[in-house]
Amino acid sequence: MTQAPHKPEETEVSAALFAEIQQFYGRHMRAMDEGRVAEWTGDFLADAVFATNARPEPQRGRAEIARNARAAARQLQEDGVLRRHCVGTLELRRAKDATLVAKTYALITRTVVGGRSELEFVCTCEDVLVRQDGRWFIRHRQVHRDDLPRD
Amino acid sequence: MTQAPHKPEETEVSAALFAEIQQFYGRHMRAMDEGRVAEWTGDFLADAVFATNARPEPQRGRAEIARNARAAARQLQEDGVLRRHCVGTLELRRAKDATLVAKTYALITRTVVGGRSELEFVCTCEDVLVRQDGRWFIRHRQVHRDDLPRD
Amino acid sequence: MTQAPHKPEETEVSAALFAEIQQFYGRHMRAMDEGRVAEWTGDFLADAVFATNARPEPQRGRAEIARNARAAARQLQEDGVLRRHCVGTLELRRAKDATLVAKTYALITRTVVGGRSELEFVCTCEDVLVRQDGRWFIRHRQVHRDDLPRD
Repeated sequence: MTQAPHKPEETEVSAALFAEIQQFYGRHMRAMDEGRVAEWTGDFLADAVFATNARPEPQRGRAEIARNARAAARQLQEDGVLRRHCVGTLELRRAKDATLVAKTYALITRTVVGGRSELEFVCTCEDVLVRQDGRWFIRHRQVHRDDLPRD
Repeated sequence: MTQAPHKPEETEVSAALFAEIQQFYGRHMRAMDEGRVAEWTGDFLADAVFATNARPEPQRGRAEIARNARAAARQLQEDGVLRRHCVGTLELRRAKDATLVAKTYALITRTVVGGRSELEFVCTCEDVLVRQDGRWFIRHRQVHRDDLPRD
Repeated sequence: MTQAPHKPEETEVSAALFAEIQQFYGRHMRAMDEGRVAEWTGDFLADAVFATNARPEPQRGRAEIARNARAAARQLQEDGVLRRHCVGTLELRRAKDATLVAKTYALITRTVVGGRSELEFVCTCEDVLVRQDGRWFIRHRQVHRDDLPRD
């Protein structure tokens, strides 16, 4: 197998790691969708950067990320909106520096009770994950909403 | 790693178990969507409870769950509707009594041939799974449709 | 466990294999969605067959599959459309001849920058995968769009 012309993807990331990262996202997205903003924010390193084409500037540091997330959660609650981040189509690679690069697709749905669920937007997410204290943290996140210009 | 302040998620559920439960849902949802109601129903324990905010009372026991599922499947067939339960964003935890708690998101799509596929509704599902005879069964299911009041 | 009346699904396909195939699809779908058609096409065997109810005849051979994929990618680019294949709900079985049968659901979204993301169509996909040179290839693909007649 070491002579194979193609690099087999299964040696890049173990099944254990793949499942662990799937768990990470299941928990992470649910924390946000259920308004547990502090838990969601705790998945970012203190000096994490969160860039998205929905904002003109990257958010720098957990404090700023948390502030924006709290404001967004409050707005959703005031509007009576249930938002879900349905995440999947994971592709996971280990970088040379022992970080992980995790690419996902997310379908974001929006529902007001009594109304109809809608696909609010579609985005791709590329996270750089690092391991500290026995768990994974987000060091860098790049989100692209498909419906907005890519800068 | 045992001194870590956060409980690492990877020790909670093994990759083998995580994959097994993903397989469970792939098979389970497909059985329903393809009209194999008896196979779908067979994933519930005889005394399972299925609660959903789409019904005023929980369904108690496999016989009642089966009766309702057959009626729903018949209705879809009469209406020429293809429904898909696109399930994902799994979060899996092992409870102290050796049961599993599996949380998923599902996007339910509705299509009539010649028409356009629609997002019919979004729901969250929380199952308590127990192992018997070498496989997993649903002991309790709680579904919440986002578009309906949460009781 | 060998005396169990039901075949436990976890012995059919290992977690390692399940994760590997999830990685395969994450990479495969992303290649198509990002316009890397040659990479996507390279996942098919030279004599692969790709049947879909969106075409009157199956596409036979990687060259024909590639030609059609390039044309589709060009069309999307001309129309300024971002298409995503959000794949999931995997069910994986090993066939007797050492091939794999992988069933997935895909939600295909369509977005034009400045517009709104839409669910374009829903399809089911059944692939026969074979292992060669240390990796998996598609030998046969059957796609069914829910919104089109099933032949």
